[in-house]
Amino acid sequence: MAQQRRVQLCTQRPTSTVCVLGTELSLDIQGSAPKDATAFHVQGTPGVKVYVVHETQSVKLPSSVTRWPLAAGTEVLLTMEAISKDVGDEKVRISYFDEAGGVPVGRAMLYLTCVEISLDADTGRSGSVSRTLVDKATWTWGPDGHGAILLVNCDRDDPKSQLMGDGDEPKSQLTDNRDTIVCSYEVVCSLCPVSVPTDSIALEEYKHVLGGDKLAYAVKPSRHQEESIFYVEGLAFPDAGFSGLVAFHVTLLESPEKGLLETPIFTDTVVFRVAPWIMTPNTLAPLEVFVCSVEDNEDFVAAISALAEEAKCPVTVCPLPENRNDRWIQDEVEFGYVQAPHKTFPVVFDSPRDRGLKDFPVRSILGPDFGYVAQETPENTSSLDSFGNLEVSPPVTVHSKEYPLGRILIGSSFPRWEMGFGGIPPPETKAEVPSIVLRFGGRRMAKAVRNFLAAQRVQAPVELFSDWLQVGHVDEFLSFIPAPDRKGFRLLLASPSACYQLLREKQEMGYGEATMFQGLHGVPKPSINEILGNEALRKFNAYTQSCINWNRDILKRELGLAEQDIIDIPQLFQADDQARAMAYFPDMVNMLVLGRHLGIPKPFGPQVAGQCCLEERVRALLQPLGLSCTFINDFFSYHKLSGEVHCGTNVRRKPFAFKWWRMVP
Amino acid sequence: MAQQRRVQLCTQRPTSTVCVLGTELSLDIQGSAPKDATAFHVQGTPGVKVYVVHETQSVKLPSSVTRWPLAAGTEVLLTMEAISKDVGDEKVRISYFDEAGGVPVGRAMLYLTCVEISLDADTGRSGSVSRTLVDKATWTWGPDGHGAILLVNCDRDDPKSQLMGDGDEPKSQLTDNRDTIVCSYEVVCSLCPVSVPTDSIALEEYKHVLGGDKLAYAVKPSRHQEESIFYVEGLAFPDAGFSGLVAFHVTLLESPEKGLLETPIFTDTVVFRVAPWIMTPNTLAPLEVFVCSVEDNEDFVAAISALAEEAKCPVTVCPLPENRNDRWIQDEVEFGYVQAPHKTFPVVFDSPRDRGLKDFPVRSILGPDFGYVAQETPENTSSLDSFGNLEVSPPVTVHSKEYPLGRILIGSSFPRWEMGFGGIPPPETKAEVPSIVLRFGGRRMAKAVRNFLAAQRVQAPVELFSDWLQVGHVDEFLSFIPAPDRKGFRLLLASPSACYQLLREKQEMGYGEATMFQGLHGVPKPSINEILGNEALRKFNAYTQSCINWNRDILKRELGLAEQDIIDIPQLFQADDQARAMAYFPDMVNMLVLGRHLGIPKPFGPQVAGQCCLEERVRALLQPLGLSCTFINDFFSYHKLSGEVHCGTNVRRKPFAFKWWRMVP
Repeated sequence: MAQQRRVQLCTQRPTSTVCVLGTELSLDIQGSAPKDATAFHVQGTPGVKVYVVHETQSVKLPSSVTRWPLAAGTEVLLTMEAISKDVGDEKVRISYFDEAGGVPVGRAMLYLTCVEISLDADTGRSGSVSRTLVDKATWTWGPDGHGAILLVNCDRDDPKSQLMGDGDEPKSQLTDNRDTIVCSYEVVCSLCPVSVPTDSIALEEYKHVLGGDKLAYAVKPSRHQEESIFYVEGLAFPDAGFSGLVAFHVTLLESPEKGLLETPIFTDTVVFRVAPWIMTPNTLAPLEVFVCSVEDNEDFVAAISALAEEAKCPVTVCPLPENRNDRWIQDEVEFGYVQAPHKTFPVVFDSPRDRGLKDFPVRSILGPDFGYVAQETPENTSSLDSFGNLEVSPPVTVHSKEYPLGRILIGSSFPRWEMGFGGIPPPETKAEVPSIVLRFGGRRMAKAVRNFLAAQRVQAPVELFSDWLQVGHVDEFLSFIPAPDRKGFRLLLASPSACYQLLREKQEMGYGEATMFQGLHGVPKPSINEILGNEALRKFNAYTQSCINWNRDILKRELGLAEQDIIDIPQLFQADDQARAMAYFPDMVNMLVLGRHLGIPKPFGPQVAGQCCLEERVRALLQPLGLSCTFINDFFSYHKLSGEVHCGTNVRRKPFAFKWWRMVP
Repeated sequence: MAQQRRVQLCTQRPTSTVCVLGTELSLDIQGSAPKDATAFHVQGTPGVKVYVVHETQSVKLPSSVTRWPLAAGTEVLLTMEAISKDVGDEKVRISYFDEAGGVPVGRAMLYLTCVEISLDADTGRSGSVSRTLVDKATWTWGPDGHGAILLVNCDRDDPKSQLMGDGDEPKSQLTDNRDTIVCSYEVVCSLCPVSVPTDSIALEEYKHVLGGDKLAYAVKPSRHQEESIFYVEGLAFPDAGFSGLVAFHVTLLESPEKGLLETPIFTDTVVFRVAPWIMTPNTLAPLEVFVCSVEDNEDFVAAISALAEEAKCPVTVCPLPENRNDRWIQDEVEFGYVQAPHKTFPVVFDSPRDRGLKDFPVRSILGPDFGYVAQETPENTSSLDSFGNLEVSPPVTVHSKEYPLGRILIGSSFPRWEMGFGGIPPPETKAEVPSIVLRFGGRRMAKAVRNFLAAQRVQAPVELFSDWLQVGHVDEFLSFIPAPDRKGFRLLLASPSACYQLLREKQEMGYGEATMFQGLHGVPKPSINEILGNEALRKFNAYTQSCINWNRDILKRELGLAEQDIIDIPQLFQADDQARAMAYFPDMVNMLVLGRHLGIPKPFGPQVAGQCCLEERVRALLQPLGLSCTFINDFFSYHKLSGEVHCGTNVRRKPFAFKWWRMVP
């Protein structure tokens, strides 16, 4: 519906006003009517379309009716067809008549100048700015949606710009969106075009005109029909207090009396949405594998490199000085990307974990067309803030709700209990029902990170239960692998009960004396009989199986999975002295997925008929899906340090083909 | 869809578990199958319903098929019909067979205990707690919506609880929701029931069990079927970082091995929404009128009291010591209410304005069943933070979008320019186009207040342009009055052009020498001729008319109004030394509306044929709507101090009949 503007008339002198192309003027004919006037006649020059609205009927003039009653409910509206060549080159005249008719008792003359002003952006999401009939002031999701998209300028185009101090500035100060001076063509490429067809600005000079303290900018109108191109960059990702929507308005001002104060007469508005940060599941093709080279893991780095080569994927090794002996690169960063119709680039999310690898993302990853984002976390971090505890599922549909970019999975305490729980149990429970003891401190990912992830909206997070584990990461009990059928993937879950079933089977076949951890110096070598006879271990694994089952149920519900989408991977856990779970043998589900090539922690299971029965079982489960299993020895370099292959690697992946704005969150 | 839980079986020993009534158990039959098993048989005692899912068909047992293949894709699900009388009083047995058939190669026995646990609230919005089939974990708007409602406990039931210090504590500390000890029956009345059918708590003792640092509470399960009633109070209204949704969960824990760690096996969730703060338009019946008694306004107080008596409405006079000579009670507070199905009470919103009346809301209004809310505003306040600048329209429909509780109207700078604008105009505009001078400092209502109002959601705010006025309040140029037809109201707009038209009419009738302000001592008395001959005044009023027209256009668009819903009230303005507008004569649109009784600032217009022509015109416009116009002399006590009748009064009104949860914002 066209914007309508109320305009006063005057019988004492002609009045002038501007009509913006595409809008309507509503004339206050009653307001300037002489006292005895009872009717009026209105006519305009050819460039003006005049309508009389009488008794809710809209009549376009000229019409057979030449005189209209001056009644409440009678309105005069006008629009104009084309931009004026000169000021006041179109006119409308109202003639007032009294009951006698005949000579008019008063005349009001209105001189009109038609101008055009329009703020346009890529609301059609085609990659270029276009005019549009859709409502530019709204932004809608879905394949039929509209609305322009803004990228956060979070890369760093000038590699020479360095930290000024000793490295203690917040890392978020180092990206381009902290620049107020736009200084190079490369920066312009990452910005998003908006155009205002008035003045012109030379393309080579970019001047910062809006943002920071400057929330309004006066544009000088010109006599000529011209475009101004404005480039826009986002300053922040969507977050708890920011929906991601940003509105730009261009307003035309008019001074009703020359030389005096202006009032607004027309506003055009365009709404942008800041593109969210998007994560990539294991089912997307790998583009780059990361691993740290530390003092004792040469063989591991070699094995990862070999696997990556098989998968035709480049490897980036983070060397010792840079990683400061911190090998857990899965925990320090999560690779994702941002996307607009005209541009896509990867963005690394830096965990608040901040151990030895803490400067690696800023120093070595952030750069031209590689962005960076971090969250400030006022509270102390816990292990659950490491990004081994941040994963994403492949695309799923749950009942009829589609998640074409999958869903984020994070590990938490159960029933969403917060940190700081550890108070004194209510008196009535203390003596009488000793089994209700709330043992865990209830760790949870930092609120700022959880809020950030939820605010991106396109991969609606699910909170799982991981606090039963010592380290407490979801990648210790689940993984996703690509599959050729059904939903295109399988969910792998660590399964103590599948491991017990396998061991009992081997025991029944007569292999009860086969031992684990063969070839590992100084490591005890329990037999199948000893493991199966260990009651405490069995009970603890029954407990961990319950914990994993709780997650299985949540995952089936929240990802719409059926039993056939799930594969149970034999795995045992053991208790630490706080009854938290650690892997009893290398945690096989904590694997590196590079297309069909899997890098799986070598379990060192009991040798049966010349091969490790755990490796044999896993191959039997996964090879039918066309996957290649490479078992990697991470025993001393990772497993004994409470992590595995997945924890010690990271992967940058190809973005989804599916454009995020086409979904409905 | 029923919650489903995965359960392990065991052929070595019987296992026991709990089945929560209404949920399903999914048995891991493959996980405990002996090595050579190829088929299974399952049966349960009569209280267990067993289903086999085979090739996506679900078959309820017993059936003609007695043996099922142990294939991937074969599942066994079970539910139970009734709560157990004893632990393990129902059983399921799985018998495994190898290819030979005949004697089972293994048997798994599962003892089941069925319990019921359900967290219920008034999700049906009937006023009492009930069981329901709808999804308690979601909250939906609309006449078919569901979801329980929580009131913010923002009244103060103990009138004796006093400020501890010298009055500088944040006022928000003084309401009941800051109490951690629930101490009286009156408080219980304002809380919202939730029930958990397990343990019982004596109704006379209320113990604070959740909230603050305590986010989880352990309930001792009992052998008997009982209810626990929990009462809940809200602590904060919806706001920028808080949607108003609060979730409560009850979780059943099970220890798979007696005496050891528990895992969650079932969670029930209820979501509440905190009831918003709602404002009341002039079209709702008045319940109480407020006016301040100061040193010089006895006649005014008498006139207001007389009008209130005509309208059969009680008057509360705020006396001098309490108001500290601050008469602008419209500016210090806004009366609203909160509503849940079981209870409604008024809530006063205290402006950050904080002049002489600043303690009045807390000292004299907050009390039992009269709540209080305020917003902390870090920045300095401006005149636009006074609540003469906060109004609400009657219910409207805009295209097809309904606003059954109307829309909030606040005044702002134009095109949404922020405070702090006043910078140096860009060089290219300075010399060449002097008319683009951005004169105003761009005042705007404090962000915290705007955020709060928007977050209530049910009266979606509209920002108007009021910064052109010296005081800058929307009540200086608009008001709503009840009407018997059309939408049930009219919008009144101050209209300089209507005033000029009237004066010209009277001049043409020969009354050019009639003067204004007759009977007012020491006040100049301009004639109609002098006013009409004053060019500067005319130009300034043309400018103010443009400003009001901009607002007319916004109001028509955002409230779906037609011309016939609007009445122009003759009014003139004059410029102060910063070119901001003040009323030239008492601002008639700034009126007190008490049902059909209007208290209008007496304009002291030119006397024509024995009466004030402005009063005559206003009566002619409003009396046909059945309204009674009382003109109140506020000239020296209010008008000369830049305010009028509306600014100097306030009204508590009857809540809407329409329940807010039935709308869709």
